[in-house]
Amino acid sequence: MTNPTAAVLIIGNEILSGRTQDTNTQFLCQQLGKVGIDVLEARIIRDDTSKIIETVRALSQAHTYVFTTGGIGATHDDITAACMARAFDKPLIEDPRIVALLSEFYQDQLNKVRLRMALIPEGSTLINNPVSTAPGFQVENVFCLAGIPSVMQAMFGTLVSRLSHGSKIYQQTLTCMIGENTIADDLANIQFKFPEVEIGSYPFFHPSGSFGVNLVLRTRDTTLLSQSIESVKRMIEEHGVTPQLEDYTKNT
Amino acid sequence: MTNPTAAVLIIGNEILSGRTQDTNTQFLCQQLGKVGIDVLEARIIRDDTSKIIETVRALSQAHTYVFTTGGIGATHDDITAACMARAFDKPLIEDPRIVALLSEFYQDQLNKVRLRMALIPEGSTLINNPVSTAPGFQVENVFCLAGIPSVMQAMFGTLVSRLSHGSKIYQQTLTCMIGENTIADDLANIQFKFPEVEIGSYPFFHPSGSFGVNLVLRTRDTTLLSQSIESVKRMIEEHGVTPQLEDYTKNT
Repeated sequence: MTNPTAAVLIIGNEILSGRTQDTNTQFLCQQLGKVGIDVLEARIIRDDTSKIIETVRALSQAHTYVFTTGGIGATHDDITAACMARAFDKPLIEDPRIVALLSEFYQDQLNKVRLRMALIPEGSTLINNPVSTAPGFQVENVFCLAGIPSVMQAMFGTLVSRLSHGSKIYQQTLTCMIGENTIADDLANIQFKFPEVEIGSYPFFHPSGSFGVNLVLRTRDTTLLSQSIESVKRMIEEHGVTPQLEDYTKNT
Repeated sequence: MTNPTAAVLIIGNEILSGRTQDTNTQFLCQQLGKVGIDVLEARIIRDDTSKIIETVRALSQAHTYVFTTGGIGATHDDITAACMARAFDKPLIEDPRIVALLSEFYQDQLNKVRLRMALIPEGSTLINNPVSTAPGFQVENVFCLAGIPSVMQAMFGTLVSRLSHGSKIYQQTLTCMIGENTIADDLANIQFKFPEVEIGSYPFFHPSGSFGVNLVLRTRDTTLLSQSIESVKRMIEEHGVTPQLEDYTKNT
């Protein structure tokens, strides 16, 4: 059985202006990988209504799940909820469940600005926000999360149990102080022998002048992982270098 | 006149597995912003031939420039050059200019594995690699750069002068220790008054319990920037809070 797939959609001018380093993509890729959901693509787009609508429709059709971050607050540049309503042809309504949450939290400080956070597409499922109350929402297969990393991460924690989980991918990394070109042919042979193991080769240079390559092996089958890691280790050792295996427990 | 536009395309399983934090997107967005090229989208995709071909064709048609990073080495998972050749219906050839560069660099250590780095689509323009010799290449409006950040950045430095530059966007940020909802209506009014200034509102929470909002104002017109910043400052002060202006020189 193939794993569920996902796309990550980061919405926000602040990422594409270069002002803010996006970290939400990596968090979501790591967490989804842990439950066997394969993230096949990520996109970063601007706060642009037609672009958001067009993109979310395309990703929603192509993947089991879509996770968006950003644009769900109450200011003029928060347009995600309105775009999702239009993308899925649903009315944008003031959700009474969110009004109740906001009323309890803000008491007599609840005003019409804050009530904007209650506007979501009709029929959405709420996503709890343990940090700052105003929830995210799920419409069809799209989960709309906050852009602030701490809030987004807390929201994701509350929804992960409702996702269909796939087979976890196991991963190990061998760090080898050798040029990747030196081992390219041998590595390609090992890849050919283990077609179900994804072998990535990531060279690195240190400012000190030393260089090497991280070989990352990924597969759903722990037996194949051990066998392929052994093959790569032996091959590297035959080149006169001792590879360092990253701590297994550190791997995603 | 409108600015040239660009898309960033990050190619690499290691980003979507969550193993590696992408930083190439932010670097390219910052540097392109400095020369007035608007990055309208970024995508991260896997080392998948048909996905790379389909994506690069779509982005190439939609934008003035496309910048890819990753997949231009000599190992089995480096498929960018072959994909670009197919995307633009050009033969993949062993480029004599690259063979000459590699011969000079590797001398009698040049072998058939290293020669794979000379395979690029016919008719490409080379992109110098001041770090590790093997060049990137430009085919049509697509610039294919290395994935290693230090190499990618050096390559970008050698090509930026050949791009068409647009009007630089000026940006200032006001940090305000006030809830964004408190000022949402006033801010929307200022946005309405300055349609040519893009005003972004980015709330933050600190673990200490303090919270506030960064207001980012962006425009091509320095007079409009000053006027709109003054309007926002006055508005925040009317709410009893003194905003902090980020050092102008720090802005992208």
